[in-house]
Amino acid sequence: MPARPPSPRTRIRRKPQRGHYDFATIAAIVDAALICQIAFAEGGSVHCLPTACWRVGRHLYIHGASNSRLTGTLTGSDCSVCIAHLDGLVLARSAFHHSMNFRSVVVYGRFVTVDDPEEKKTVLAAFVDHVSPGRSALVRPASPAEVAGTAVLRLSLDEAAAKIRNWGVEDAADDLGIPVWAGVVPLRLSAAPGQAEAGSEGFAEPALPAGILAA
Amino acid sequence: MPARPPSPRTRIRRKPQRGHYDFATIAAIVDAALICQIAFAEGGSVHCLPTACWRVGRHLYIHGASNSRLTGTLTGSDCSVCIAHLDGLVLARSAFHHSMNFRSVVVYGRFVTVDDPEEKKTVLAAFVDHVSPGRSALVRPASPAEVAGTAVLRLSLDEAAAKIRNWGVEDAADDLGIPVWAGVVPLRLSAAPGQAEAGSEGFAEPALPAGILAA
Repeated sequence: MPARPPSPRTRIRRKPQRGHYDFATIAAIVDAALICQIAFAEGGSVHCLPTACWRVGRHLYIHGASNSRLTGTLTGSDCSVCIAHLDGLVLARSAFHHSMNFRSVVVYGRFVTVDDPEEKKTVLAAFVDHVSPGRSALVRPASPAEVAGTAVLRLSLDEAAAKIRNWGVEDAADDLGIPVWAGVVPLRLSAAPGQAEAGSEGFAEPALPAGILAA
Repeated sequence: MPARPPSPRTRIRRKPQRGHYDFATIAAIVDAALICQIAFAEGGSVHCLPTACWRVGRHLYIHGASNSRLTGTLTGSDCSVCIAHLDGLVLARSAFHHSMNFRSVVVYGRFVTVDDPEEKKTVLAAFVDHVSPGRSALVRPASPAEVAGTAVLRLSLDEAAAKIRNWGVEDAADDLGIPVWAGVVPLRLSAAPGQAEAGSEGFAEPALPAGILAA
């Protein structure tokens, strides 16, 4: 069962029966993501930008160039981060009852920069391993200059909410006789065969994250 | 070549060579999406929420319950909408040069409600056909009460920018001898076999949107 929302702004107001506030549910949805969307205010506008993300412990991490404007903006005011996985098309017998299955998380809070170079190296290695398990041990680690040129930011997952729809069609009883296929078409992000760079012949294909990509 | 950004806030500042401002590029990325993320300000916070979307002409459409708070909020101030497709893992020989291939669009502007019931029916049918081509003719159309209970909002795509990375690994010359597989792992959203509801036996499987889902 869902725990209580950690703050008023994380309370699921629309279809609250789909809301979850426990950390295990939130962490699992975050771990299934390679990218997130960040909403923030700057220069009189609200912005929404996609970026890569990964989790270590109770924080969501992002990275960017250390000279980008985004780092300063995100550490200067609260933002909202959205992760959404589209898991299925719910095809009903009436147009109105069509739906989608999904898992989403919305996080509120303020990013802080990770300044310690050793900590940055550790969480950046975790990022490489998030994308391809075990890969951080196979590639050249970041040099001191590369670490210095990379901004790493983290956001606490303490103020977050998840929303899940993962069931079948909810047709009205009067519509059950309509002669059309109804059901759920499951969707998954899937990997196609890797396109190797010249010089990669003979090396083992990269490991892929089983919790993110369909086999 | 990219046209000029339509406004200062749509100008791609980070890696501008990845920016595109022509409508055809923007429309193609929007058409490949089933969901978007909307950033908006309300109650002293910035929020980021996912929702289903589709395009008709030069507008992006979303829908929701006509009594939801979101409708009033979105028509009362400017927002930003993000669509992001993750197209590939770019696996380099150094941790630093890892990247991702993607197509994204960010739109700025203010949603307006579609009030005319006939226009609402038309764009809602387009939504059903976006999810499953031809399906709007097979299912029960929305009743007047269902149309009245559904808020349909549209956002002009005139103030929008696209960003695309769709190429291979950019390793440093010094790293080319590192003994590890390097290349791109293409990613696609894919459909698994449909899970039919009871009573669907014998009906044709639904058509799926070829521009969105891998075959």
